Parts: sequence; structure tokens; C-alpha cells
Amino acid sequence: MSKDSKTKFIGNLLLDYGSGGQASHRLINDLFLHYFDNPILRQMNDAAELHLSGHLAISTDSYTVTPLEFKGGNIGSLAVHGTVNDVAMLGSKVRYLSTAFILEEGLDMQLLERIVKSMAEAAKEAEVLIVTGDTKVVPKGAVDKIFINTTGLGEIISNNPPSGSKAQAGDVVLISGTMGDHGLTIMAARENLPLGAALKSDSAPLNLIIEELIQNIPEIHVLRDPTRGGLATTLNEITMQSSVVCKIEESLIPVLNDVKQGCSILGLDPLYLANEGKLICILPKQYQDKALEIMHKHKASQNACYIGEIFAPGNIELKRQRTLNAKAGQVLLETPLGGTRLLSMLEGEQLPRIC
Amino acid sequence: MSKDSKTKFIGNLLLDYGSGGQASHRLINDLFLHYFDNPILRQMNDAAELHLSGHLAISTDSYTVTPLEFKGGNIGSLAVHGTVNDVAMLGSKVRYLSTAFILEEGLDMQLLERIVKSMAEAAKEAEVLIVTGDTKVVPKGAVDKIFINTTGLGEIISNNPPSGSKAQAGDVVLISGTMGDHGLTIMAARENLPLGAALKSDSAPLNLIIEELIQNIPEIHVLRDPTRGGLATTLNEITMQSSVVCKIEESLIPVLNDVKQGCSILGLDPLYLANEGKLICILPKQYQDKALEIMHKHKASQNACYIGEIFAPGNIELKRQRTLNAKAGQVLLETPLGGTRLLSMLEGEQLPRIC
Repeated sequence: MSKDSKTKFIGNLLLDYGSGGQASHRLINDLFLHYFDNPILRQMNDAAELHLSGHLAISTDSYTVTPLEFKGGNIGSLAVHGTVNDVAMLGSKVRYLSTAFILEEGLDMQLLERIVKSMAEAAKEAEVLIVTGDTKVVPKGAVDKIFINTTGLGEIISNNPPSGSKAQAGDVVLISGTMGDHGLTIMAARENLPLGAALKSDSAPLNLIIEELIQNIPEIHVLRDPTRGGLATTLNEITMQSSVVCKIEESLIPVLNDVKQGCSILGLDPLYLANEGKLICILPKQYQDKALEIMHKHKASQNACYIGEIFAPGNIELKRQRTLNAKAGQVLLETPLGGTRLLSMLEGEQLPRIC
Repeated sequence: MSKDSKTKFIGNLLLDYGSGGQASHRLINDLFLHYFDNPILRQMNDAAELHLSGHLAISTDSYTVTPLEFKGGNIGSLAVHGTVNDVAMLGSKVRYLSTAFILEEGLDMQLLERIVKSMAEAAKEAEVLIVTGDTKVVPKGAVDKIFINTTGLGEIISNNPPSGSKAQAGDVVLISGTMGDHGLTIMAARENLPLGAALKSDSAPLNLIIEELIQNIPEIHVLRDPTRGGLATTLNEITMQSSVVCKIEESLIPVLNDVKQGCSILGLDPLYLANEGKLICILPKQYQDKALEIMHKHKASQNACYIGEIFAPGNIELKRQRTLNAKAGQVLLETPLGGTRLLSMLEGEQLPRIC
């Protein structure tokens, strides 16, 4: 329960709270405005008025994660981090979020308050404002407790915005930290598996790190967060969009021991597990040191490292003087034992409701 | 089923379609990109890049209407109209929409295709682009078939944007047509009541009408669409935000005979029923004729009319030489028999999942 003495929320959510009538107004004023308060939101018109200029980035995501609360966050903080990160990846300064709640009749009001409070704290940390919102309450059984949509808006501050289609031969591939933490945390919570003490979701805002990268490095080709489908799927998307080949070294990819152990028990591959606070940065080799230096200053990216490079399609040199004729769109993984395997895109669903 | 010979969608939706993997990519390419196609959406990055400038309006709404298809529209067209209208009400030219789908495993793919096609058609009619999106597929039972979020962005073209807080004594209150059509259509469909032949949802885009109003009338104080809670609730919101009194005449409010009859059978008041293609326009009396002239040219507002006026709090003159000491925030309804009643805001839920 919130420590805030102003809380008026006990018991369970009633359908009336989503009616658009007086009960809705009380929910909006006492919960959402209370926690998200800012001058733009307080206008309380059908739409909010913003001041933005130039090239903008927009992204939307619905969050349906289960369980709603997990080690390292909850659906509220995740809904802020996920969208803030997607908007930032276009080389933008993230400014505003909209948020829309779909709530199930009977929802525990204290749970809702904890989630809303986490959203407010996550927005504050990421230096973004929640400027407009919507609340629907649906009858019991029509939704599983709570789904949250956030849509984010940012101002593109890069003169040459990063894009999945801009990876070039000669570029290096950096990642900002360990892979698979979020995916395994959610899976372990759902299956009631005992977690290692260090294991928690990596959910975090990356936008301020990205702003610093953009401001200090003249040429960043790709920024992407490896969420659903993990590192393997995201690298496949990039190599296809850019018509290039990516080669990464398995031994260089940081994975927590707890994640390795959990994956080996469950038969999972950490390269396909979702991350919610990590980024892939692809840029010319000359900027590698500067990019890593910047990332190492921030807690969320203190384990940033080089994992591989981008090549033109054709013959790629491998360890032990072997070569491989790789096609555009392929991602090659060199294993510690000197083998090479093709990392394909995740075909189907590894774990539903991961975000 | 769609007549489009390219359709690849038969059977039922699988969880895999929401995985972020190859199955997701096929759904996005073959369904969403196929119908919503435009150069911005086709960038296919985590976020879309837009070109906008100046003051912007943003609004978000989640649509949970049941049934999904109804006379006059479906959840897809409604999700476009509802958000386009909210953004337009701030005096803006609506430009872009994001859309996020939450789909239930097992959903009929042909139903999904009909909904997506309707969204595309509604966006085209409203002259807006769907520029970014998200798809989540959740296991059977976690959502009731399909929920859609749309977030809209527009450029504010009014030098003095309308707001619920700008109604002034002396202003006239206009509405763009009949009240209650959407609410009664949904209720009748859900209760399997026989509908009058003329009854269907009024769901429609109002943005092009609003653009013409803004461009031709120098001073429009309030634009608002009377959706959830209906005309009565929306007028209460406006009078409270503006600290004024509103007096309307019941005999002047257009209500279809089918709606009147349905309401009398069900014990409902059409002034509290949702509308999805109507607007309230409050402006100085001198611009009334021009505003009605513009609205009468558009099919969606051809029955626009005057229904009342705005007063300062204090003694208000009523029919038959009576007066009433009205407080700020009150909405007075003069009845055809000469009585006056206070129209309060809807307290709770008249009908859940109306939009």
C-alpha cells in the first residue's frame, strides 16, 4: 500500500469508475492526476496541447505482462520504460507519454495504486511527462486484471537518425549489458522457480544514455532494444533491413550466471529471451571506444561491450582460417569451441505476455 | 470476408502471431502493412519519424466496445473516429494515428481482417495516416476478443484553441445532430432488441468539419464530443471547467424517433447516451449562423442546431417570468411543458463497453 496519506483507494474497482461520469472523475483526480500531475495533463480537455518542433519520433506499445509485479519492476514501470526506449532508439529526446488503462472490474485498488505510482516514478526518472490518458473499466472476465498502453513522443536530435536499415560493413556491434534478465525473471515468477538472488528484470529507461551517445558521437547507424524475441531476433531484423551480415561471438555476450543456469534447466536460449533495459548500438569502429566510455558511466549500461561486427554479404572469414559464404540477412554466431551457427529469427512464441 | 484476393487470413489467430518472431512479421506485413500502407509506417523501426511543427494536440483512447460489429461501424472504424475527433476538438488538423491491438488467441482471422480494413477506410476518409503500431496476442481468456488503442496527433491550427474552460456568458450552444444514436445502437445489439430501420451508430470523423469551422470563424470557445455520459455529462464538464451556467431547451435537442422509443422501453435518457460522431460547439452568438451554415454542408452535421446558451452564475431568467439562482457548474434543462430541471452529471455506469 502506498505510504501517501492522501490515498483514498481501498477495496476493489467498480465498473462505475470507467463510466465517464462522476465516479470516473474521482478516479482520475484522486489517482491519476495525483501521481502524474503536470500542467499539460491538468488541462483536462479531450486532447492535450504540446509544444514540439521539427522531426518527431512516435511509438506505441500495449503492456500485458503477467505477473503484474515481478522482481525489478511492475507493469507500470515497464510501460514507461518500454515506450520511452522505443522512442529514444530513433535518436530522439523523449518528451511526452500518453497512457491508456484497461482495467478489470474487481481489480485490487491498492495494486492499481502501486502500479500508477511506479509509472509516475519511472516517468520522473526518465524525465518525461505523462500528458494525456484514458481509463476503461470492463466487466470481470473481459480482461486479465490490467493492460496498459503507452504512446511516446520525442524530438529527433540526431542529424542522421539511427535506423535498422543503416548497418554497414565495417560497423561494430555493441550491447549495453547482460542478455535475458527480463525474460527469465518473468518465466521464473510464472513457473514459481526459485530465482538466484541476483536475478531481476533489467527494465530501465535508456533515453538519457542515448541522448548522450547522440550528442557526442557524429555517426550512429543503428540503435535498437532487443525486447521480444531477444538479441537473436533483433539482430535478424537489422541484418534484413540493412541487407548485411552480422557475425557475433558467443563468448563475448554477457549473460548472468543465474540466467545461464535457469536457461539450462528450462531448455531456453538467453539470446532469444526478452530484455527491457538493454540496447544494441551499431556504429563505425572508430567510435567504439567513445560509445563504450559513455555507456560505462551509466548504471543501466555499465556492462556494455563489443560482441561482433557487420559484413557485406559474401565470403566471411571465420576462426581457424575457415570462410563461409553468407547471404544478406544472416546472423552468424561463433561459439567458444570454434564452431559457427546460423542464428535464426524466433519463429513463434517463446513466452507470451513477457511485456 | 474481404473481397481482396490477396487475403491470406483464414482460421484462427495463434499465440505465435504476437511473439515478435517470424509469425508476427507475417501478420504485420500481410495484414497491417497491407491495409494501412504508407511511407512512414513502412520504415518499420521501433518508432516512426514524423514531420510536424508548432503546437500539437495529442489524445489517446482504448476501445473495448462489445459487440465488435454493429450497425454503422465496428471497433476498428470507431477506434479511428473516436480518437480523430478528440484530437480535432482542440482546434487541430489531425495528421497521424498510432494503433495498438490486443488480440485473443483463437480470434477469427476474417473478423480481424474486416476490422483492420474498416480502420484503413476510416483513416482514409478522415485524411489521417496510421504511422506506427503494436500487436500483442494474449492467451485465450485473457482478453475478450479484441481491444484497440489509438493515439492521435494533430497540428493546432486555431490561434486561440477551443477548451472546455472557455465558455462565456452570452455564448450559444450548438450541437451537430441527433443525440443517443450510438449508445442505443450498442445497447439494442447487446440486448437483441429489434431496432428501428433508421437506427445505427453515428460513428463518423468530425475533423474536416472542425477544420472548416476553425478556418472560417475567428472565435470558437469550446468544441467537445459528447461521448461516454452523453450530452448531459459533457455539458456538466464544460460548465464546471468554465465556472458558468448552461441552459438548454429539451424541445430543441434532436433525437431520432427510434431512439426516443428505445429509450422509453428501456427507461433511458437520450441525453446520457454516448454519441460517436457528434460535437458540441460553444461560441459567441454573432458566429452562430456561420457555424450552422458550415455544419449543414457536411453529412455528419446536417442536422446541426442551436440548443441553448451560457450564462454567468446568478439569477437566470426562465420561461413564464420565473427566475432561478444558478450556481457555476450547473446545467439547466427547460422542458416542453415549461418546467426546469437540473441536468446532473452521470454518476456511475450507464452502459459499460460502449466504446
